[in-house]
Amino acid sequence: MTGKSLLNTFLLAITFQCVGAIAAQDPLSSWHNTKSKQTIITFVKQVTDSNSAKFVSKSERIATFDNDGTLWAEQPIYTQLLFAIERIYALAPDNPEWQTKEPFATLLKGDIPGALIKSKTAVNDIVMAANTGMNNENYNDLVTEWIKTAKHPVTKQPVTNMVYQPMLELISYLQDNGFKTYIVSGGGIEFIRAWSESVYGIPPEQVIGSTVKRTYQLQNNKMVIVRHPEMDFYNNNSNKVIAINTHIGRRPIAAFGNSDGDMQMLEYVSSGKGSRLSMIIHHTDKKREWAYDRNSEIGKLDQGLDKALKNNWQLVDIQKDWKVIYPEPKN
Amino acid sequence: MTGKSLLNTFLLAITFQCVGAIAAQDPLSSWHNTKSKQTIITFVKQVTDSNSAKFVSKSERIATFDNDGTLWAEQPIYTQLLFAIERIYALAPDNPEWQTKEPFATLLKGDIPGALIKSKTAVNDIVMAANTGMNNENYNDLVTEWIKTAKHPVTKQPVTNMVYQPMLELISYLQDNGFKTYIVSGGGIEFIRAWSESVYGIPPEQVIGSTVKRTYQLQNNKMVIVRHPEMDFYNNNSNKVIAINTHIGRRPIAAFGNSDGDMQMLEYVSSGKGSRLSMIIHHTDKKREWAYDRNSEIGKLDQGLDKALKNNWQLVDIQKDWKVIYPEPKN
Repeated sequence: MTGKSLLNTFLLAITFQCVGAIAAQDPLSSWHNTKSKQTIITFVKQVTDSNSAKFVSKSERIATFDNDGTLWAEQPIYTQLLFAIERIYALAPDNPEWQTKEPFATLLKGDIPGALIKSKTAVNDIVMAANTGMNNENYNDLVTEWIKTAKHPVTKQPVTNMVYQPMLELISYLQDNGFKTYIVSGGGIEFIRAWSESVYGIPPEQVIGSTVKRTYQLQNNKMVIVRHPEMDFYNNNSNKVIAINTHIGRRPIAAFGNSDGDMQMLEYVSSGKGSRLSMIIHHTDKKREWAYDRNSEIGKLDQGLDKALKNNWQLVDIQKDWKVIYPEPKN
Repeated sequence: MTGKSLLNTFLLAITFQCVGAIAAQDPLSSWHNTKSKQTIITFVKQVTDSNSAKFVSKSERIATFDNDGTLWAEQPIYTQLLFAIERIYALAPDNPEWQTKEPFATLLKGDIPGALIKSKTAVNDIVMAANTGMNNENYNDLVTEWIKTAKHPVTKQPVTNMVYQPMLELISYLQDNGFKTYIVSGGGIEFIRAWSESVYGIPPEQVIGSTVKRTYQLQNNKMVIVRHPEMDFYNNNSNKVIAINTHIGRRPIAAFGNSDGDMQMLEYVSSGKGSRLSMIIHHTDKKREWAYDRNSEIGKLDQGLDKALKNNWQLVDIQKDWKVIYPEPKN
């Protein structure tokens, strides 16, 4: 063997090793090889293959994800509501009138479920009192600080560790295939923006959510945006479609949700032309997570379940489709 | 000279030629080398130099541009109003009641200025009648078709050729330096989205504008977004700041406007920390374009002019700062 052919053999060997390593790397390694995973992969291959009749140009590859129950756990309580309750406790010394004013009085006695059903507006009253009254930049700081140490009430894990590992892989897989990924949540837009980039790799400008009324005004010699305790836009049901139109201006080609509030978004996506992916995360895993659908107070999936079956949307069965639920636990 | 040194000399010559060509390529070649251009270049160098104390990470490099009067001509009439008037003429045969209903009756007699001042709501009535009543996808098709052949009433040039060449270069220069560029216009968001990518290189999801009320509903067996003749959000003055917050969720570091309606946006940008660029396009060129400011009905720049001087915002003097105004004329 000459020196040159030895080198060639060596280079060839390296090349094969690299190809092998790449082939072994499964971008959706936390997904079992069931129909859900195959549906995702087939869809992505179709829309990214320029020789396919179903090819979609990069600029049109838009994917939208609901947040609570789709990207992270929403049981036994929405994380933003947890933030609100903890903040009410923290603010209580400065608000003595809450000791006699509902739903705060009940909440401060430690009866969280009782406070939440105290009146029709109880949840809204708590959320508004906790999430408004400051300027946007201060609010961002508050959420950023809180989420660093906030723990899930049941698992005692950091709330940022209660994200679904298979969905993190799905976001990355779509991004790696040229998709622009958006969150389209009923939760507060600024609440999610404070951590969406570090947790999901989704920047603030790709977060769509509910908004409160705001004014632009002078505060401590600086022009800022002040948050007021009144709903501006509640991003759920048909409003998710309107918000997608306002923010994105294109019809997405893929959407992921888990509750009835996501149905219009999934339907909007699937009623467009060409290859489409509308997927529902069905919470079926009592042991590793929670099992709930038609009769749940949180994340109710009733009409959506019927629609999914009728429209042939892919139902992700967490118990059967996901090898793991969460990333490695943290101490 | 050996063969090898000959090759080296040849390669060196090519290298010098390339370096020369790159140095000669001025990204802002339509700008005179005045203070405006120098201010832009200094700012971009500061925020992109990782050794500078004023360095800004790529994700925070957000620049917002007003549209009418900042990126394209707004005299003697806003282009979207031109679209609306032409559409009213086209729709007149199907709307016989307009023959006796103002402001349409006056408009259909050919008296455009008379129609526009017929009542306080005349402009709004015309714009709403022309821009709503159809679904979003049909509206996009309408604007896309119209703009292919629409001509400016004075210059008879395609309206898409009435864009400011120096501003096109500025958008590209910022994009090439890692900026995400947004349009923040008082004009209709969907009107601009129909051509912003082909004309400015700005995709639909980076266009922020005024919106009409919309509903998500079934039309001809397809779920679509229908546009209704009622204002949802008028994106001007302080609302530009609120819309930037809703859509982007970060404070931009550069903003460009030309009228009083842009002042809050420029002020919001300049009151942030670090290096900031707030710039006003001042229409001073009667010969090559139009000259107007404090007393203009369209694009009034009055309080803004005072604010600019007080806050040391850079005023672009079109007459002195721009070598050319428009791209090469088209036949």
